[in-house]
Amino acid sequence: MKCRHYLGAALALLLSLISLTVSAMNVSTENGQKIYHLSLAETWGPNYPILGDTTKSMKAMAEKMSNGRLQIRIDSSNKHKAPFGIFDMVKAGQYDIGHTASYYYKGKIPNAMFFTTVPFGMIAPEQYAWFYYGGGMELMQKVYKPLGLLSFPGGNTGNQMGGWFRKPINSLEDLQGLKMRTPGFAGEVMSRIGVAVTNIPPGELYTALERGTIDALEWVGPALDLRMGFQQIADYYYTGWQEPAAELQFLINQDVWNKLPGDLQEILRVAMRTAAYDMYAQSMDMSGEALDTIHEKYPNVKIKTFPPEVINALRKATKEKLAEMAASDPLSKEIIDSQHEYLRKIRKWTDISDKAYLESVSVEN
Amino acid sequence: MKCRHYLGAALALLLSLISLTVSAMNVSTENGQKIYHLSLAETWGPNYPILGDTTKSMKAMAEKMSNGRLQIRIDSSNKHKAPFGIFDMVKAGQYDIGHTASYYYKGKIPNAMFFTTVPFGMIAPEQYAWFYYGGGMELMQKVYKPLGLLSFPGGNTGNQMGGWFRKPINSLEDLQGLKMRTPGFAGEVMSRIGVAVTNIPPGELYTALERGTIDALEWVGPALDLRMGFQQIADYYYTGWQEPAAELQFLINQDVWNKLPGDLQEILRVAMRTAAYDMYAQSMDMSGEALDTIHEKYPNVKIKTFPPEVINALRKATKEKLAEMAASDPLSKEIIDSQHEYLRKIRKWTDISDKAYLESVSVEN
Repeated sequence: MKCRHYLGAALALLLSLISLTVSAMNVSTENGQKIYHLSLAETWGPNYPILGDTTKSMKAMAEKMSNGRLQIRIDSSNKHKAPFGIFDMVKAGQYDIGHTASYYYKGKIPNAMFFTTVPFGMIAPEQYAWFYYGGGMELMQKVYKPLGLLSFPGGNTGNQMGGWFRKPINSLEDLQGLKMRTPGFAGEVMSRIGVAVTNIPPGELYTALERGTIDALEWVGPALDLRMGFQQIADYYYTGWQEPAAELQFLINQDVWNKLPGDLQEILRVAMRTAAYDMYAQSMDMSGEALDTIHEKYPNVKIKTFPPEVINALRKATKEKLAEMAASDPLSKEIIDSQHEYLRKIRKWTDISDKAYLESVSVEN
Repeated sequence: MKCRHYLGAALALLLSLISLTVSAMNVSTENGQKIYHLSLAETWGPNYPILGDTTKSMKAMAEKMSNGRLQIRIDSSNKHKAPFGIFDMVKAGQYDIGHTASYYYKGKIPNAMFFTTVPFGMIAPEQYAWFYYGGGMELMQKVYKPLGLLSFPGGNTGNQMGGWFRKPINSLEDLQGLKMRTPGFAGEVMSRIGVAVTNIPPGELYTALERGTIDALEWVGPALDLRMGFQQIADYYYTGWQEPAAELQFLINQDVWNKLPGDLQEILRVAMRTAAYDMYAQSMDMSGEALDTIHEKYPNVKIKTFPPEVINALRKATKEKLAEMAASDPLSKEIIDSQHEYLRKIRKWTDISDKAYLESVSVEN
């Protein structure tokens, strides 16, 4: 027993040394100047549109602004083989930076979920205001700092669509037992109102929908849905409620950050912030383009919004789930309260600015 | 004649030398490193909220990222005394950088107008997508490059309100002869539909509205209107149509830009871009906050939207004005066509994403 104990301690020490070795970023010297080599692991496959463009653009800005003193190597999921292991790898120091989505890690850190998007929550401009001026960043660090990580917004997809359905949904009744692929928080909410929620790997989604293994699925929005081909086998494309502003995330190992000089920290911070904002603009652009293609080439596709009966049931289930989370953990409550109060205020502004404008100009001459 | 000719040439040479002297930014050397001292003139007075925060934040990011190799001195309008002379001062090299709004210079450069905002045009997320992914930046440089200037987005106010009215507007008839302060393009459009448009300096607006010299006025939105006090003397606060996404502008003297090393150019470019995006988030935040205050402390204020009859007349007049501009200049036509086609595509996406979402969740339980 004692022997085992020593062995365990020795192993732990050895592991911590290995971990120390890998967590130190590589620093070289060229012409008397220190070059900081950072590694970045992203959830996405190589050359993934929009999401992958964001890491490439962050790298390009950081390297140019630092005149080459920062060098960032990007590994896509084909290299590191752990698309949903980004959090662990950056925490352990196997990678210095990660690009992923906070809510992928809600199994380990339930509070991570709130920093991606929340059903019936804020739209992107509201959420950026919350992050940067409404206390969101501080709450995100409160969740990530104890884990040895810094977290930053990493790009917004914009409002995501509610999904592709083979039959129209005219009532709550139509959703009972409906087999739908929809993961995460939205899946739990859908399940509470009677949907038979299932998860299926992305590569099998098209076939599953085509063969009737599932009746419906939710993916992202026009820009990324079009290339999946769902418009060929489902006629009803529903507007969203579940991810009004999905924000990706840059994670940085705190030890690595601490070892960077102040100017390079600021260069990284600003490069990540700009790349994130840019991704939202790019998502807008590509969604407009892809939707235009869908309208032109797939006249079978009808855009629909769930009836108020369904929306209200989804909202009720969302509120119940959030109330359970708030009751279970004080930090969850703090985040939920912050988002709720911020949304109350800012939505009034959105309603009389962009919403009122969009409605008044949509009345045709 | 010959003598005069020589005199002229000598004067021209002298002037070009003087111009060369003032346009050259100040470069000093400290510890063997070149320090680039840039001067920035802004339209705003000192410590002006939101707009002035944007230049301060740009300066802070650029100086920190460059580790002090960039030093930016900001002069507010109390110093340079030429709030609407920014364009001329940066062009002449009296200042290296300007922070202003492109449409202030439409008298000299009619095409400058399109890069701030256009009545019935794009909202902020759509417009950023156009600037950065839809050809907007290229068109803006096409307008500014021949003038020896670079132009960059400089921060968005978000959707501006339609203005403060002392009486409700229920029909087009109610606007006939109404005395309203509303400058620029919107003023011209208002004038075409029968409003008696007038311009009054900001400092006299409150008194003019209180004494009935004017019946209505348009300023910005809650964040900047509240401190003007209009809510105390006008009950009707109309939603906007005229400036759906007013974007400010950074101007940089091309010669100054060319003299900066590549890493500092990139630092400036990225600092301006981030400061601009941040201003949009800050505008959202402060608008929500100020609107909340208006609701709480001024229950007299009623938020209204112009009836469809008025919106349609305004839109018709806007289209006529744009058609006249397109007919008068090929570059105007190119910009108008680009914005029109981009809006056609992207608004369809906005309508089924944020607009559909905001409408579906506004149905109360």
